Amino acid sequence: MAELKIGLVGTGTIGRTHIERINTRLQGGRVIACADVNKDFGKSVADKFGIRAFDTPEELIHDSEIEAVIVTAADAWHAPFVLEAIKAGKPVFCEKPLSPTPELCKEIVEAEVAGGKHLVQVGFMRRYDPGYGQLKSLIESGKYGAPLVLHCCHHNYDDGGIGWKTPMSVENSMIHEIDCLRWLLGEDYAKVDVVFPRSSRNAGDCKDPQIMHLTTKSGTYIEVESFVFSHYGYDVRCEIVCEEGVLNLPEPPYAMVRTNDARVTPICHDWSERFPEAYNIEFQNWINASKEGRVDGPTAWDGYVAQIAAGCASKARDTGVSVDIDIPEMPEFYQK
Amino acid sequence: MAELKIGLVGTGTIGRTHIERINTRLQGGRVIACADVNKDFGKSVADKFGIRAFDTPEELIHDSEIEAVIVTAADAWHAPFVLEAIKAGKPVFCEKPLSPTPELCKEIVEAEVAGGKHLVQVGFMRRYDPGYGQLKSLIESGKYGAPLVLHCCHHNYDDGGIGWKTPMSVENSMIHEIDCLRWLLGEDYAKVDVVFPRSSRNAGDCKDPQIMHLTTKSGTYIEVESFVFSHYGYDVRCEIVCEEGVLNLPEPPYAMVRTNDARVTPICHDWSERFPEAYNIEFQNWINASKEGRVDGPTAWDGYVAQIAAGCASKARDTGVSVDIDIPEMPEFYQK
Amino acid sequence: MAELKIGLVGTGTIGRTHIERINTRLQGGRVIACADVNKDFGKSVADKFGIRAFDTPEELIHDSEIEAVIVTAADAWHAPFVLEAIKAGKPVFCEKPLSPTPELCKEIVEAEVAGGKHLVQVGFMRRYDPGYGQLKSLIESGKYGAPLVLHCCHHNYDDGGIGWKTPMSVENSMIHEIDCLRWLLGEDYAKVDVVFPRSSRNAGDCKDPQIMHLTTKSGTYIEVESFVFSHYGYDVRCEIVCEEGVLNLPEPPYAMVRTNDARVTPICHDWSERFPEAYNIEFQNWINASKEGRVDGPTAWDGYVAQIAAGCASKARDTGVSVDIDIPEMPEFYQK
Amino acid sequence: MAELKIGLVGTGTIGRTHIERINTRLQGGRVIACADVNKDFGKSVADKFGIRAFDTPEELIHDSEIEAVIVTAADAWHAPFVLEAIKAGKPVFCEKPLSPTPELCKEIVEAEVAGGKHLVQVGFMRRYDPGYGQLKSLIESGKYGAPLVLHCCHHNYDDGGIGWKTPMSVENSMIHEIDCLRWLLGEDYAKVDVVFPRSSRNAGDCKDPQIMHLTTKSGTYIEVESFVFSHYGYDVRCEIVCEEGVLNLPEPPYAMVRTNDARVTPICHDWSERFPEAYNIEFQNWINASKEGRVDGPTAWDGYVAQIAAGCASKARDTGVSVDIDIPEMPEFYQK
Repeated sequence: MAELKIGLVGTGTIGRTHIERINTRLQGGRVIACADVNKDFGKSVADKFGIRAFDTPEELIHDSEIEAVIVTAADAWHAPFVLEAIKAGKPVFCEKPLSPTPELCKEIVEAEVAGGKHLVQVGFMRRYDPGYGQLKSLIESGKYGAPLVLHCCHHNYDDGGIGWKTPMSVENSMIHEIDCLRWLLGEDYAKVDVVFPRSSRNAGDCKDPQIMHLTTKSGTYIEVESFVFSHYGYDVRCEIVCEEGVLNLPEPPYAMVRTNDARVTPICHDWSERFPEAYNIEFQNWINASKEGRVDGPTAWDGYVAQIAAGCASKARDTGVSVDIDIPEMPEFYQK
Repeated sequence: MAELKIGLVGTGTIGRTHIERINTRLQGGRVIACADVNKDFGKSVADKFGIRAFDTPEELIHDSEIEAVIVTAADAWHAPFVLEAIKAGKPVFCEKPLSPTPELCKEIVEAEVAGGKHLVQVGFMRRYDPGYGQLKSLIESGKYGAPLVLHCCHHNYDDGGIGWKTPMSVENSMIHEIDCLRWLLGEDYAKVDVVFPRSSRNAGDCKDPQIMHLTTKSGTYIEVESFVFSHYGYDVRCEIVCEEGVLNLPEPPYAMVRTNDARVTPICHDWSERFPEAYNIEFQNWINASKEGRVDGPTAWDGYVAQIAAGCASKARDTGVSVDIDIPEMPEFYQK
Repeated sequence: MAELKIGLVGTGTIGRTHIERINTRLQGGRVIACADVNKDFGKSVADKFGIRAFDTPEELIHDSEIEAVIVTAADAWHAPFVLEAIKAGKPVFCEKPLSPTPELCKEIVEAEVAGGKHLVQVGFMRRYDPGYGQLKSLIESGKYGAPLVLHCCHHNYDDGGIGWKTPMSVENSMIHEIDCLRWLLGEDYAKVDVVFPRSSRNAGDCKDPQIMHLTTKSGTYIEVESFVFSHYGYDVRCEIVCEEGVLNLPEPPYAMVRTNDARVTPICHDWSERFPEAYNIEFQNWINASKEGRVDGPTAWDGYVAQIAAGCASKARDTGVSVDIDIPEMPEFYQK
Repeated sequence: MAELKIGLVGTGTIGRTHIERINTRLQGGRVIACADVNKDFGKSVADKFGIRAFDTPEELIHDSEIEAVIVTAADAWHAPFVLEAIKAGKPVFCEKPLSPTPELCKEIVEAEVAGGKHLVQVGFMRRYDPGYGQLKSLIESGKYGAPLVLHCCHHNYDDGGIGWKTPMSVENSMIHEIDCLRWLLGEDYAKVDVVFPRSSRNAGDCKDPQIMHLTTKSGTYIEVESFVFSHYGYDVRCEIVCEEGVLNLPEPPYAMVRTNDARVTPICHDWSERFPEAYNIEFQNWINASKEGRVDGPTAWDGYVAQIAAGCASKARDTGVSVDIDIPEMPEFYQK
């Protein structure tokens, strides 16, 4: 079957990583063009990869050669370009968040439903990590009973360099758990609160760590700890206490060394080491599904629901009280 | 130096275990007599161990041959017998709780202070577990910065047999963490709440698991999960997230077996397998200190403070709201 | 760049796996045709994958459309088809062994050198496992000093079904370690012996386990344990005792479950679960290198040397005495 | 029951450690006197512990107040003092080796048998380590079938300070495995060889590491690696490959710390940290058994057999060839 001809909009770091990945490691698709709101920069990236440059994202999206679109522009630009792709009737992969604004997410959902074609996938890549896949299989096996409590953490080594702000812990970091755990448990959230433990001396003006407690509709209780300035490594963990067993996300496979009076097993230093396989699987699946006219990853609806929950979590964080999460009924269009 | 002559009051299971331990495994002390509120039963236990029987606990406590007292009677009897031992001016080891009633704990504290001699030790044996000792050393080394968040769990295999009730999770199980973590962190609690996740189908009428959140005065945030009907093993864990490292309580050392497509390392089945060494160290230390007129374990003050905190946790559990923990100022008598 | 057009010779299980892998998961190459000595069977496989069938391997190898060849025929056919590909001047990937007969391996080496083009790669895929790659990096870092002793094991669950014979432990199983450890250590072997411990009651007529001891020219001592009927899992391990540290091959990343009084982490059940990533990397690298006229994997020389060493090990096994391994000097052609 | 009155002969480091252990941690026995071939030194040690000093070991052994004897003199003095204790009809605990000379071990055996009373225990303390106890239980459960291969290692951090010589690896280090594995497997050895891998640059003039291969009468194959200058820690491991499972000696329970991009779990730095519990159990058992007129630890026969095997291993090491181990028939006296 011919290769899927992909155009990418937004040529920042993550966008370039995706071009590199698709064009050198995956199969059945190729990024043949790119565009950026900064036209000259977009052109320089196109030259680097030997692909075509468009003057504007809109031209790229509507060009007849382009069969599918990847949106890796700045967050605020996600919704406009996704809507444009829906208008063009083309499969579109949008990095998370679908939009920081739940209303715009809703607009995308409505546009997609109105168009009647499944087109939008959101870049919640953690669903594709084989470790989370193992956890999902273990839960679904029923062998250990229902999940009752989850303990999750998301630790970064040190994000001082990128101007981290207190709200980003929910909105940029724990948003991954918000989507992934909902997918893992197969149910929506009912309630959220956020607490601030004692802050680290390394966190500057930020409140860090932060702990978010999510409760699902059936009462499963989830604790997510985000610790951005943890100063020891990039460490994502997930433990699921079930009725008759406790499940743990596997740690990445590193060689253990006996040295200096200790057994020492590496932890990732930063995010780029932790999920390369998840990204590979995510994009390979997206290419395959796009060619068959399907969306089998996180949908626009998932993107919308994640932003509703994140919005409630932000409100809970700012007010210091628990907030109910009210998820509208899912349109029939998204039922599997 | 001569052996410490010990009398034991309350000859139930735990009392008999202590006699066995002291008289066959430890050094420098000997249980030479016992008594029980059920006089005939106390006599039968005395016969079994070949030791002297007293008709009443009071007679034992005041007998001139008895140099130190162990109280392992029913909880409600702890305070009266401890007070009697203080009156007799004798070292007394009291199983936890010092008393279920904080007011009686306070009375004991006042009697001990008035007497001017350090006499009372409370049976919080977890402080003597070498694993917790390692955690305390690691914290005090300062190498990893201040503790910010603690994740603790206390899972039992199945307590159906002993008539478990919902309040017991705080009062009989998590009371261990209440004392031990305060000792570990070296500071008092400021606030507590208790939440009920979805209950296990194996928990009958009980709400199980339960999660208690304690906040210390400096803001360290502690999550303790008690899951009494966990149906997989007796499992006590403690993870301490510090500013520059995460510390973990060691797991008991069991042989790992590769079998049936898996690496399998045993977990304790019940409490009796988990802390034998802690009990040995606890009583050896108590015997040694008693002979030198010191108390170097958990004091009456520690027993009192634990009951205040447990009382607040129970109130938080029953009301569903966070409760402030107000600890009175520690008498100078107990300063080290 | 255009896709590399690949023809595959020998359409048994492993051959079909390679077609599937290259045509659905990898990039830059495509198996466009196949042939088998059983012409009809070859044709049926071609139909299944929608690719072209040739009547004979020779026709395939010499067809002008075919740019590179994969040989997955029965072992005895490896050498003839590889020689044919050299004659045709085409890159050829040959499953291990290059040939069971060292003399034929030598003939291939001589043909390749005479042709003056680097064309032959042997399917020692374990070099591509990321875990072994980590070990190689750790050794080459020099941080732990020179490797002194290696402890390796290769355990299979149960190979009763495929008619295992005693000699196969060296020739089909430990041959992987023979190649991989030579690559890992970067030096040739000097000596080998093979011992038979007590055999398992599950091993039927076979002598199983077997232990092979290899000594390298610098004196590094290697113990390889092959246990084909281990009855517990597919388990490949490698521990390297260096002058100042001990390195361990990582175990595959599986979710650990606390259940039934134990912590349980899965082990692979069979080989197909253990090295999928190594196979992906191996073939992707081969495709990339072939398009650039390079061979950057195990060469014909490596295949030849492995067979010499395996031959000595077989002799050592049959005679019960240590055998010197005499490796001819490597032709300049193969120097990097 | 009254305390066992113990006299200790040989007041070097290990002797003083035993006095300390028995007199402050164990129960039912007390070292009440000591003696040393250096009379003044023995007296100074006696003063330090507040116990009685004898002018000579012989006087101590025959003094009517002394009920049991511990021999911790220099190796060459073990046999004479043990024979003296047998003459005196008193229980005697002798540090390993019973004697470096198998003939003297035999003489002790004959003297004990002639005397008709079980009196001699040898200080092979590793049998009392709870981890080895777990391995023995697992083997004896029969659940995993017969043991086929054992992989053992005995690594020291750095023994440069004590004038290590090449022969000591067998005679002072692997002698522990020689006794312990025979006990673990419940059978005698048939054959031994010793090989020298490439030596560490840290080993000075010594050949280090060394690998000893023992074969039992039933064919179980044992590899013991001694690496005295390992420069990373004190590390004793034992892996037992059975017909249907692989058993591993547990590692000591240390707190795991996530720090510096790694999970770090301590290894012991030296022997004193590794086996304290084994020593406690060993001496408590010896005291208890001595009071009841039994020997339930390693016997004079075990001490004799260990020296025969060690002698064969030394010969194998020096000659470079495999040596048969010929164990005489065990006297009925030692049958359990």
